[in-house]
Amino acid sequence: METLSLVTLLYVETAAPSLQDNTADLDRLKSALLGALPDALSGRNLNIPYKCMGRVAAAFRKGGFRGYAVLTVLPWQLDVVDFFQAKPKYLPAVALDLGTTHLEASLIDLLTGKTLAGGHAVNKQIEYGTDILSRIHYAEKGIDGAGLEQLQLSIVASINALICDLVTPLGVSLHEVTALSVSGNTTMVHLLLGLNPYYICREPYIPLVNDPDPFLCAEIGIELHPQALAWVLPSIGSYFGGDLISGILASGLDRKEQTSMLIDVGTNAEVVLGNREWLIACAGAAGPALEGGVAKMGMRAGAGAVEHVVIDRNCWQLNVQTIENAPAVGICGSGLIDLVAELYLARIVDLRGKFQEMFSGQSPEQKAFVKEHLVEIEGEKAFIVVSQEHSGSDEPVVLSQIDLDAMMRSKAAMYAILTTLTGQVGVEFADLERIYVAGAFGKHIDSRQAITLGMLPDLDLAVYKGIGNSSLHGAEQILLDETTRIRARDIGQKITYIELNVNQDFMIRFSGSRFIPHTDPKIFPSVPVFS
Amino acid sequence: METLSLVTLLYVETAAPSLQDNTADLDRLKSALLGALPDALSGRNLNIPYKCMGRVAAAFRKGGFRGYAVLTVLPWQLDVVDFFQAKPKYLPAVALDLGTTHLEASLIDLLTGKTLAGGHAVNKQIEYGTDILSRIHYAEKGIDGAGLEQLQLSIVASINALICDLVTPLGVSLHEVTALSVSGNTTMVHLLLGLNPYYICREPYIPLVNDPDPFLCAEIGIELHPQALAWVLPSIGSYFGGDLISGILASGLDRKEQTSMLIDVGTNAEVVLGNREWLIACAGAAGPALEGGVAKMGMRAGAGAVEHVVIDRNCWQLNVQTIENAPAVGICGSGLIDLVAELYLARIVDLRGKFQEMFSGQSPEQKAFVKEHLVEIEGEKAFIVVSQEHSGSDEPVVLSQIDLDAMMRSKAAMYAILTTLTGQVGVEFADLERIYVAGAFGKHIDSRQAITLGMLPDLDLAVYKGIGNSSLHGAEQILLDETTRIRARDIGQKITYIELNVNQDFMIRFSGSRFIPHTDPKIFPSVPVFS
Repeated sequence: METLSLVTLLYVETAAPSLQDNTADLDRLKSALLGALPDALSGRNLNIPYKCMGRVAAAFRKGGFRGYAVLTVLPWQLDVVDFFQAKPKYLPAVALDLGTTHLEASLIDLLTGKTLAGGHAVNKQIEYGTDILSRIHYAEKGIDGAGLEQLQLSIVASINALICDLVTPLGVSLHEVTALSVSGNTTMVHLLLGLNPYYICREPYIPLVNDPDPFLCAEIGIELHPQALAWVLPSIGSYFGGDLISGILASGLDRKEQTSMLIDVGTNAEVVLGNREWLIACAGAAGPALEGGVAKMGMRAGAGAVEHVVIDRNCWQLNVQTIENAPAVGICGSGLIDLVAELYLARIVDLRGKFQEMFSGQSPEQKAFVKEHLVEIEGEKAFIVVSQEHSGSDEPVVLSQIDLDAMMRSKAAMYAILTTLTGQVGVEFADLERIYVAGAFGKHIDSRQAITLGMLPDLDLAVYKGIGNSSLHGAEQILLDETTRIRARDIGQKITYIELNVNQDFMIRFSGSRFIPHTDPKIFPSVPVFS
Repeated sequence: METLSLVTLLYVETAAPSLQDNTADLDRLKSALLGALPDALSGRNLNIPYKCMGRVAAAFRKGGFRGYAVLTVLPWQLDVVDFFQAKPKYLPAVALDLGTTHLEASLIDLLTGKTLAGGHAVNKQIEYGTDILSRIHYAEKGIDGAGLEQLQLSIVASINALICDLVTPLGVSLHEVTALSVSGNTTMVHLLLGLNPYYICREPYIPLVNDPDPFLCAEIGIELHPQALAWVLPSIGSYFGGDLISGILASGLDRKEQTSMLIDVGTNAEVVLGNREWLIACAGAAGPALEGGVAKMGMRAGAGAVEHVVIDRNCWQLNVQTIENAPAVGICGSGLIDLVAELYLARIVDLRGKFQEMFSGQSPEQKAFVKEHLVEIEGEKAFIVVSQEHSGSDEPVVLSQIDLDAMMRSKAAMYAILTTLTGQVGVEFADLERIYVAGAFGKHIDSRQAITLGMLPDLDLAVYKGIGNSSLHGAEQILLDETTRIRARDIGQKITYIELNVNQDFMIRFSGSRFIPHTDPKIFPSVPVFS
């Protein structure tokens, strides 16, 4: 079955008007379109928006009453938004992963389904607050929603610049882009839409909207085709956004007979458990240390990010691999997990997550290694991952105790979230068919190392499957396939959301998880325990 | 069955959100609305337009998650456009008869269906051309559609001012007005929408659009509620507008078993023939002399307009009646028909439609009467209807030969249109159950006098029924009743339109009708013929 993209092109050819056939131009076009609609589109209301009437009619007449109509495809309606005399080369649309820290976008040709370009950018809202909570507080500042407006203008500017970067090298102009799909957390969606996020962070944590109806990009200041539609993936709750719905779509969790789990770590950690019968989800602040941008040396998974670390415990050598083998400039999430796991196995980080210089049974080589790498910077212990000499900037790449503490909180929160969720429905980790790991975090993560830290359950590594930036993949599918658009809404209806912010069980589990691998090492049999 | 108005109010009451029920505000509202929808509205897509989200959500929350939602009712969709904590006094909407010369409007309360106010105004576009053709030519002037834009701005200004006059005395503000229905001829609709009318007056006479989809008043500059919908009655062709569809709606021609006829004379004359099985229509320029504003002393049917004229042919006295008995300032369409018919019966106008001073068998009283009333002004014969002394202005109310000539062309065109149309389908006038006469013209017309002139067929007077300004009535019904909105579109699909501009038959019939009552007086047996 052919999929129905959010915007489609339809060729029509009609007789020129005459005294015997004096139908008005737009009525003629509509009638021809209704006759040419594929079965999957028929029965929907066919609408020509006021602002398109003049342009569409002129192009239709100029083309000799034949040509290519551009239709926006809504579940109940088709909007005729443009008309071309010749078949356009592309029908470009943008899929956007709207992250708190980073934006990632693809330019997709809806004629072929092919990705024409991809890119990412920093969310410029960072200057008003690094995390969601500080953004919500910023939105309350000023008179008459001035803070909120500033945040909206800022994210819109980030998006406009990112899309401009995508289209320019292809010779595509912004007004040729006919649609935008957005997958983001609930707060980011509110800030993009300029909607008051005040109640999101206040008990009982109620968003203004979870499932906004489609609107025009122009209405929020995104400068694409004047009738380009914005389709926002629905959220489930204040801390469970459309980005995770994207993950469910990309993993297919909602279609499987067997129970699986999806873990998505962005700035927030969001977890879904379920199968085609039921879905249960929760979310919590587990990610900051893992996504980069918060830890001092943390960075997004990009060129120069340390993504893989090995400490050779025979000859006490540190091997560091960066993305694209570029000179190191920081550590991305997966690099951080690798590093801390290796430091734990090398006994340079103890089970409480603290740096230790000395311990019983240390060899002279080990001592020398520690001496070389473990230094004191501004009164704090820090581990030098790449020296200033070999780094890509004018300072060394280090892991400070502060970063390490943040990392420990994140890993503890993550495991606590996972156990709280499975506990709610009485599912054992061993019963899971698969654990999908999404997010920038999931793209490169070494599950073995995450298990060593006690961040992920101690299961056969084959259970884990990285699915990359599923938030972006979901947004791409939304552009390309109507069944996905419908599925996204169905998931929203079907899912049960557990609020962790008020969950006592979670808090207990969180405390138990603040050790490596856990206060109860028996549940991580594959991880060595040092006493 | 209750009728569905274009905007409706729906009370909803929901539980306040809690940790156990953390649905987002707008999703909560939507779900409550879907539960509260009457059967007639269910199954439609429920949409909250982007621009309403913030305001509606804030009002819903402020009202304690209960109150009155304002919904715009489209056949396939409901738009939530506002939310009130308390039941508003009115749900005001405006019905507009968009005439080439005059605008007439009603302010309707959609809660009760009652008319709150009525008013009329001159179409300010008159300064750019008195008739449709000159307006179309004006629209072509300037660079980049400047002429068209000027015309649009002008009519929008006229409408804004008229609506302001309607609401102000009631203490209703413009942004409380939630909808506008528009009934007008095809060209006026194009000019209101700023759509190019160029091809309307050029063979094969094709409008840009006959049935525009609903749009927001704000999109064309009409300053009502920001989400007030504009619903334009569909047209059939370049010279057959929504105003006549209104007439069909108001007369119910499309629902009757027996064949009837509808005659609507505004600036143009439009005629429909048919029954519930079929409808055939045509239109032509018959009206200018009858609607006022074109004939020198012509005026709209308003205070001070001569609407009824009797020449007492026994004692040779002229009796003139004005609307509201105000001092005479001009002659309206019905007055003109009365006057010319009386002048013909008094033999002061001959069968060619020319003034005559002398004829055989004239009595001295008759001679004196002619001498008193028939004068020469600027080299042209003219009949004084009301002397300067008794008029409401500083000049007499007169009928000039030029006005009389225009009147003769109009009456000839009218009869030619009627016979051409019936001829097309082989219907005899005698077969008609009813002839509905609409327009400002129809409100006061004396059918007997119109028959005397040979303007309307020589039938029993009971066949004729005046239905007033049916264009406005149709627009009112559009606001109040969804079946009427659907009927309007159905009529558009059903009707066959005969183009008179290229009809040879019409031209022959027009020539034959340029006598009083006709070149063939046998077809007007009730009208005396003077030789």
